[in-house]
Amino acid sequence: MNESEAKQHLSQIPDWTLEEDATKLKRTFKFDNFVDALAFTNKIGDLCEQEGHHADMQVGWGYVKVFFQTHKIQGLHLNDFVMAAKVDALAR
Amino acid sequence: MNESEAKQHLSQIPDWTLEEDATKLKRTFKFDNFVDALAFTNKIGDLCEQEGHHADMQVGWGYVKVFFQTHKIQGLHLNDFVMAAKVDALAR
Repeated sequence: MNESEAKQHLSQIPDWTLEEDATKLKRTFKFDNFVDALAFTNKIGDLCEQEGHHADMQVGWGYVKVFFQTHKIQGLHLNDFVMAAKVDALAR
Repeated sequence: MNESEAKQHLSQIPDWTLEEDATKLKRTFKFDNFVDALAFTNKIGDLCEQEGHHADMQVGWGYVKVFFQTHKIQGLHLNDFVMAAKVDALAR
């Protein structure tokens, strides 16, 4: 989808940002320690494996950054927005 | 430590590279799927928690990138090289 469509979908997941010319979705989660960050990484990992759509994640002490992109098109597909919403639900 | 000292230590862990003006160590591990990449992320996470020295990691389908830096000095300390060697041992 193009940037204007992506921005429309983004209104449904306001904690996410568009990155790299609207080819990726990103959300950062903060934690008080390393163990909680890694545990959340695993929760997202389980979801991704279950859905067959895999996030790229960055994890370290106190944070997890989650990225979604449909690698086949090197850009955003509706699936990425659906996955982002499911990650939001996990975080609630 | 300065870049020249870092390069000397690097000879002990030849699979790692110096990043960002020799302020970080990096190694990339490849996997055949997402689950194995995430499992290795957790193995490293357990090691980091045990040692009290935390990596920054990037994980996605088929890869884990591991970074060590001593955040307090925004650069490399001998501990980072020790941790890198321990990660190498985990990967063997």
